[in-house]
Amino acid sequence: MSRLLIFQSDFGIADGAVSAMYGVAYSVCPDLKICDLTHEIPQYNIWEASYRLIQTVHYWPRESVFVSVVDPGVGSTRRSIAVRTNSGHYIITPDNGTLTHVKRMIGIAEAREIDEEKNRLPSSSDSYTFHGRDIYAYAGARLAAGFIRFEDIGPVIDVHSVVELPVTEPVIDGDTITGTIDILDVRFGSLWTNISKEQFRALEIPYGGRVEISIINDTREVYRNIIRYVKSFADVYIGEPLVYVNSLDYIAVAINQGSFSRAYNVSPGSNWKISFKKATTLP
Amino acid sequence: MSRLLIFQSDFGIADGAVSAMYGVAYSVCPDLKICDLTHEIPQYNIWEASYRLIQTVHYWPRESVFVSVVDPGVGSTRRSIAVRTNSGHYIITPDNGTLTHVKRMIGIAEAREIDEEKNRLPSSSDSYTFHGRDIYAYAGARLAAGFIRFEDIGPVIDVHSVVELPVTEPVIDGDTITGTIDILDVRFGSLWTNISKEQFRALEIPYGGRVEISIINDTREVYRNIIRYVKSFADVYIGEPLVYVNSLDYIAVAINQGSFSRAYNVSPGSNWKISFKKATTLP
Amino acid sequence: MSRLLIFQSDFGIADGAVSAMYGVAYSVCPDLKICDLTHEIPQYNIWEASYRLIQTVHYWPRESVFVSVVDPGVGSTRRSIAVRTNSGHYIITPDNGTLTHVKRMIGIAEAREIDEEKNRLPSSSDSYTFHGRDIYAYAGARLAAGFIRFEDIGPVIDVHSVVELPVTEPVIDGDTITGTIDILDVRFGSLWTNISKEQFRALEIPYGGRVEISIINDTREVYRNIIRYVKSFADVYIGEPLVYVNSLDYIAVAINQGSFSRAYNVSPGSNWKISFKKATTLP
Repeated sequence: MSRLLIFQSDFGIADGAVSAMYGVAYSVCPDLKICDLTHEIPQYNIWEASYRLIQTVHYWPRESVFVSVVDPGVGSTRRSIAVRTNSGHYIITPDNGTLTHVKRMIGIAEAREIDEEKNRLPSSSDSYTFHGRDIYAYAGARLAAGFIRFEDIGPVIDVHSVVELPVTEPVIDGDTITGTIDILDVRFGSLWTNISKEQFRALEIPYGGRVEISIINDTREVYRNIIRYVKSFADVYIGEPLVYVNSLDYIAVAINQGSFSRAYNVSPGSNWKISFKKATTLP
Repeated sequence: MSRLLIFQSDFGIADGAVSAMYGVAYSVCPDLKICDLTHEIPQYNIWEASYRLIQTVHYWPRESVFVSVVDPGVGSTRRSIAVRTNSGHYIITPDNGTLTHVKRMIGIAEAREIDEEKNRLPSSSDSYTFHGRDIYAYAGARLAAGFIRFEDIGPVIDVHSVVELPVTEPVIDGDTITGTIDILDVRFGSLWTNISKEQFRALEIPYGGRVEISIINDTREVYRNIIRYVKSFADVYIGEPLVYVNSLDYIAVAINQGSFSRAYNVSPGSNWKISFKKATTLP
Repeated sequence: MSRLLIFQSDFGIADGAVSAMYGVAYSVCPDLKICDLTHEIPQYNIWEASYRLIQTVHYWPRESVFVSVVDPGVGSTRRSIAVRTNSGHYIITPDNGTLTHVKRMIGIAEAREIDEEKNRLPSSSDSYTFHGRDIYAYAGARLAAGFIRFEDIGPVIDVHSVVELPVTEPVIDGDTITGTIDILDVRFGSLWTNISKEQFRALEIPYGGRVEISIINDTREVYRNIIRYVKSFADVYIGEPLVYVNSLDYIAVAINQGSFSRAYNVSPGSNWKISFKKATTLP
C-alpha cells in the first residue's frame, strides 16, 4: 500500500534540486504518488515552512507523508526527525522549528530521530550539503512506499524535545484584542493574524459591524482606521479594506482586489502588533 | 474509471492554497491523477484565465475535468457552474467570464449550476473566502473520480446565460486588417493577436513576404515598421522582428530571441490596436 | 510497461505551454507518470539546460524518458534527436548543445534523429513554432508508454555528431588551480565551479583548512580573500564565506545564509575565472 508523498522546501523550482528529490523518491519506488506543498518558502524561513504545513496538512489523506526541507543548519548537529501527528499524518524534517505550528495546533503523537546511517541514499555518504535529496526524500519515499515502518525510521525521542520557535499569544485587554501578523497571503497581500475566530468573538462584532483597527511597527502606529467585519470580499466595495475570517479560521485584514501589505508596507514579524476593537463611532 | 483533473488559478504556488486543493481532491479519491494548467494567472484576470483554457483544453483527453479558480467575486451572488464542452471536456469555475473563449471557440454543450449544499467539502460551511478548496476542487475531484455524474452537479442552466467578457472582432478595411492584442506569450514577449490565420490570408501575403505593421495605443502610434511574415523564428536573424502564425493558429508578432513587448512597451488590452497590410515598398 | 516522462523547458509556468505538453502526453497514454525537471531555464540558455540534466538524470530510474525543450532554433535545420545514455536514460531534445554535459560526463550509448513525419502529433503539421508540444512531448510520451521502441524514433546517427557547446577544463599551475563558474545555485547565490573534488585534492587542503581564492572578470580582479574549506555550511558562521564540495561533487563557493553571487556581482560565463590555492598566511 502506497501513501502520498508531499515535498516542501525553500529550493525554488528554477534548478534541479527538487527534481533530484523526485528522482530519488521514484527510484525507491516508481509507483509512488508525489506532490508539492510549495518550494517557494523564502530561504531559511523556518517560521513560514511551519505555517504552510498547518495550512495544508489536515486537508490531505491520513497517512500521507510530508517531507519539509528548510534547513539552514544542514551539516550541523541539528537532528533529523520524523513525527506522526495526532491527525495521522507523517512529517519528516530537520528538527529546527519547522513543526512549531503542527505541534501546538494538531499535536504530535510520536517522534523519532532519523537514523542517518540506515536511511540514507546509498553511496551518498560523501555529500554533506543536500540532505533533502540524500536523507529526507529517500527516507520519506521508503516510508510512503511502505518499505519501512515508522518504527524503522530510528529511535523514539521525547515529543517535548521537538524544537519550537517562540510564539506569541493574542492578548485581550478590556474591549481590545491585540495579536501579531503571522504571515501574508502572499499573492493577495492580506495580513493573516494569530487571532482566532473564537478569540475575536469576544469583541461581539456582528458580520457587517465596524472594527477599529490599529497596526503598530515597534513604537510607531502605521495604520489606524475603522473598517467593516464581513463574511467575504464581495461584501465590500472594490478597493475597500475589510476584516474577515480567513481559510484557516483566523482573523485577516485585506483590501478587496488590492494589496493591504503593499498599500501600507506591513509585514509579518515580531516587531509588528495589530489590535482590533468594536468601533463606537462611524468613520 | 478515473478522469484527469486539471487545476488553474491565480493563487501562485508560493503558499499552501494550491496544495490544500490537491489535498482535498486526493482525500476524495487518492487514485486521482491531478495536474496543473497554471497558477500564475495575474490576480483577478479573468480574461487571461479564459485564454489559457482555450490554449490548452483540446490538447487534453476527452472527459478531462478542468477546475479554474480566478474568483474576484467569491462570496457574492455570482454562480458556480460546470460545463461540458462540445469537445467533451468538463470545466468547473465561477461564472464570471472564465468561459468566454471556450464558449465562442469550442462551444458549450451543457451547463449546470453547482449545488453548493451538496457539492461542498464536509464541515467547510463556515468558510466564505476559499471556494477553490471548499467547492471547486471538491466537486471537480468527485466528478473526475466518477463518484458523481455531471447531472449530479446541480440543475441545468441555459448555455446562453453563461457570462462572457466583451470580445472585439478583427476588422478588414480595404487592404488592412486591424485587431487587438489578446495576450502575451509571457516569457518570450511575443504579441498574440485576435486575427486568425484564415483572416490574415485575405491580405495575400506569402511566407517571406513583407508586412506593414502599426500598433496604436489609444490615439498614439507606438510602432510602425515593415517586417517579414515567416513560418518560424529561424527564418529571420536574431534580433529581427517577425510576423508569424502562433501555436493556436493566430497571427503573432515577436523579436527573434528578444522581447517585442518589452522593446516597445506593448501590452494586451482594449486600448491597443494592431494593424497589418501588405507592404508595397521595401523597408 | 510505462516509464517515467520528465519535461524540461524555458517556457516558464505562467502560460499554457507546459500544460499543452502534458495534455498531448496524457492523450497519448493517460496512464503515464509525468514530472518536471524545471521550466525556469532562462530563455534560450542551452548551457543551463545541459547542466540541469547532468544535475538530475542519474537520480532517476533507468529507462526514464527526459524531454528537454530549449529551442532557439525551432524551425531551422537543427536536428531533433533522441539518445540513450550510458546510464540507461533516454533524452529527447533539439540537437543544439543541450546534451553537452551528459555526453561528456555520462556518455551517450546510441543517438537517433527523430523522424518528424512519423513522430508528430497528428494534424499539427501546419504549426512551425512549438515543436515541444507537436514533436518532443508526443514522441517522448510514445516512447515512455512503450508504444514505440527507441529504434522506432528514427535513423541512427553518429554519437560524435551530437552537438556540444565549448567547455573549458580547469588548469593546475604550480600550487594554483583555476577554473570557471559553471552555474549558480540560483536561489542561494552559490558559485558552482567546473573544478571537481578530485582535481581540488591536488591542493592538499584538509577540511577546515584555509584557501586563497581569487575571482577575475576579464582582466579585473573582483574578489580576493582567504576563506575556509569546510564540509558543510554549518561549519562556518552565519554570513561567513566558505569553499565546499557541492551536491554534484564539484567545488563551490558560498556565503552561509547569504548570496555570494549578489554580494560580489559574480555570474557564470566564459569571461569569469576562479582560482584557488592553499593559503600560507592567516587572514
